[in-house]
Amino acid sequence: MKFELNTAIPILERTPTVLRVLLQGLSEEWIQGNEGKDTWSPFDVVGHLIHGEKTDWMVRTALILENGPNPAFEPFDRFAQFENSKGKTLESLLEEFEGLRKDNLTDLRSKKLSSDDYERIGIHPEFGEVTLAQLLSAWVVHDLGHIAQISRAMAKQYKNEVGPWPKYLTILNSTPKE
Amino acid sequence: MKFELNTAIPILERTPTVLRVLLQGLSEEWIQGNEGKDTWSPFDVVGHLIHGEKTDWMVRTALILENGPNPAFEPFDRFAQFENSKGKTLESLLEEFEGLRKDNLTDLRSKKLSSDDYERIGIHPEFGEVTLAQLLSAWVVHDLGHIAQISRAMAKQYKNEVGPWPKYLTILNSTPKE
Repeated sequence: MKFELNTAIPILERTPTVLRVLLQGLSEEWIQGNEGKDTWSPFDVVGHLIHGEKTDWMVRTALILENGPNPAFEPFDRFAQFENSKGKTLESLLEEFEGLRKDNLTDLRSKKLSSDDYERIGIHPEFGEVTLAQLLSAWVVHDLGHIAQISRAMAKQYKNEVGPWPKYLTILNSTPKE
Repeated sequence: MKFELNTAIPILERTPTVLRVLLQGLSEEWIQGNEGKDTWSPFDVVGHLIHGEKTDWMVRTALILENGPNPAFEPFDRFAQFENSKGKTLESLLEEFEGLRKDNLTDLRSKKLSSDDYERIGIHPEFGEVTLAQLLSAWVVHDLGHIAQISRAMAKQYKNEVGPWPKYLTILNSTPKE
């Protein structure tokens, strides 16, 4: 499947609702449970997605499209949510993410990207040259990866409750990496 | 986290809506794309969940609660969806799953299970003795595992589009097992 805005945007625009349906109104055990030391809870993941909306995807897109002499991305802080989400409720995070994503997609649509734009280049702090299409594809995959991560973290809260079933519930055996 | 009906049901009852929000109205590439040979697409997974509603979770629960002399479960057919979903639309599968899940949860609630009931026993064709609490916990984890699987199958449709990003998008490197 090739990256195209009209197949990417339908995924990006539904993620806030997916998270809301998956998490809203659940007890703290489901929301705050993680997969062990140095892993993230659903609450942590929503904060991480908020930070991406603020500092990563559309900021980098704008930098690429500016066509300046040095389209070098700032490094992304993967741990900003631990400070930024402190004292907030899940509900307020879900709302914040919804608003930011909506604004970012309005901004993205307003740029009326052509296929030529897809090939424009930015400089990733670790990878070097990347194209706009790669960046926007990564945005989509990043959303889906974190939906999977949230589901996995939740599943693991019942790890000790399923008796012999982990043999067929392999999500319980998978390692926390995304 | 211990299994309790009042923490399990909130997960079970939202899964049909999660799937609808995640999948409804997407193009066929997202719906029918799988992770390679002998793996499942989102469309396949929804059919599999339907078969579970019809033949697995509540059928086994009823068998356990009957207290008959031989509470032996029928083996579950993990591949029934390939025949049963033929010619159907995703929309019709989502609707069917919604209806079945709703009826099953009405049925589950009507049984007014006590903590003593949680310890009642059924005979799994492979595992032998399992408790009702283990069965119902497995139902919850099974839902969450398949939400993660759907997200992963979708993410992989963009695998070749993200350039160097798989290093940080580890969902693209994970193997299809659940």
